[in-house]
Amino acid sequence: MASPDDRRQPKYQQIADALKDAIRSGQYGPGDRLPGENDLMATHGVARMTARQALGVLQNEGIAEARKGVGVFVRDFRPLRRQGIKRLSQEQWGSGRSIWSADIEDRTLVVDQVSVTEEESPADIAQVLGVEPGRAVCVRSRRFVLDGKPVLLSTSYLPADLVAGSAITQEDTGPGGTYARLAELGHKPVHFREEIRSRMPSQDEADRLRLSMGTPVMLICRTAFAGEGHAVEVNEMTLDSASYVLEYDFDA
Amino acid sequence: MASPDDRRQPKYQQIADALKDAIRSGQYGPGDRLPGENDLMATHGVARMTARQALGVLQNEGIAEARKGVGVFVRDFRPLRRQGIKRLSQEQWGSGRSIWSADIEDRTLVVDQVSVTEEESPADIAQVLGVEPGRAVCVRSRRFVLDGKPVLLSTSYLPADLVAGSAITQEDTGPGGTYARLAELGHKPVHFREEIRSRMPSQDEADRLRLSMGTPVMLICRTAFAGEGHAVEVNEMTLDSASYVLEYDFDA
Repeated sequence: MASPDDRRQPKYQQIADALKDAIRSGQYGPGDRLPGENDLMATHGVARMTARQALGVLQNEGIAEARKGVGVFVRDFRPLRRQGIKRLSQEQWGSGRSIWSADIEDRTLVVDQVSVTEEESPADIAQVLGVEPGRAVCVRSRRFVLDGKPVLLSTSYLPADLVAGSAITQEDTGPGGTYARLAELGHKPVHFREEIRSRMPSQDEADRLRLSMGTPVMLICRTAFAGEGHAVEVNEMTLDSASYVLEYDFDA
Repeated sequence: MASPDDRRQPKYQQIADALKDAIRSGQYGPGDRLPGENDLMATHGVARMTARQALGVLQNEGIAEARKGVGVFVRDFRPLRRQGIKRLSQEQWGSGRSIWSADIEDRTLVVDQVSVTEEESPADIAQVLGVEPGRAVCVRSRRFVLDGKPVLLSTSYLPADLVAGSAITQEDTGPGGTYARLAELGHKPVHFREEIRSRMPSQDEADRLRLSMGTPVMLICRTAFAGEGHAVEVNEMTLDSASYVLEYDFDA
């Protein structure tokens, strides 16, 4: 219905609002196809550009996403649940399970890109690791894919001298992963700090995670400590926010 | 410099990339004013619309933000640090401190809007609280402001019969806040679950938090448990992602 408010809004915004109302009311559910440009042109008597702008609003707000050549669909939020604390408990990596397996329940998270290099430490990483800027660090970069869709970029930094000669410098770190190897080296992680923020992706991040329009990334910076003030790893993660819920469970 | 790649990109995108490079290189630091439309028109020999589109790209990606009538500025990320676990430790609310004070360090977070109502429980909240859908819940809605800028919307749900007659049903819950009152009622929170996700804001959220373009929100859904499976509060929080870093510290 046209309220006095509506008349002050551009036509494409009015159409976008009508579509949002229809989604809120359940007329279009998660995964449903929304009316296309032709439908909107006929229903609302507008030009193609106006119809396209209306659908663009929903995509920019992350409410709908376009599938090329098929149409625009209501977004289906069926996220992975990443349990920050449970997944880093010692039972996980102590018994040779990868720390990532807690994420996936019955869905299969796969590493499809991995690189291990030795580089000069970036200044901010050096500060957290407590090494001099420019000291060598082992850099492990991985991309994780769920059902063929990239969902997570992970770049891990460890002091190069600390991990020299261990499987941490290999693509395959072996059973229990990096943390099991650190324990064998006498630097068992006993404490973790995770810092989380969110922002819009860079073009490169959007490409690597194949993000739809209107999809922010969540950033997790995890620091592993082998003792008071003794950081042994910094892991910078970039997550597709449409694919993840982060969970932290703790006692008062 | 024009590479073959550049020539395939629209002009506004090339200008946006040049501005991003200048920000990355430090030519423009956090809080600095970027060249305006007139500057870009003169430097790049483009129309005003092209210059505006270029600045729009940076705003959409959250790299820069417009201040009305002043110009477009490199975003300054100087976030609040919200410590998820430390801030909910009993020393905080046990000794009469508000659970929010851990957030603010030397900056002052103020409630500028508060409402307390009794409503029928939404279905999803009822499920978490373990009450029948439609049962009455006490709903506490607050908006928190930092230095005059809204940064957090918080809506807390508690079973109405559980909190009846207590200060939880008042705007001012008294020293130690809701959790201290729950303890006095024999429902002391002993365990917390926080679930975090991120998405673009609705128009209403963007208005209430006064978000710039290209700014996602982070959502925290916190459940407080007074015992195994005994949820006593669900708190849905909506945070300006440009104002917050969330931190969780825990042992292996």
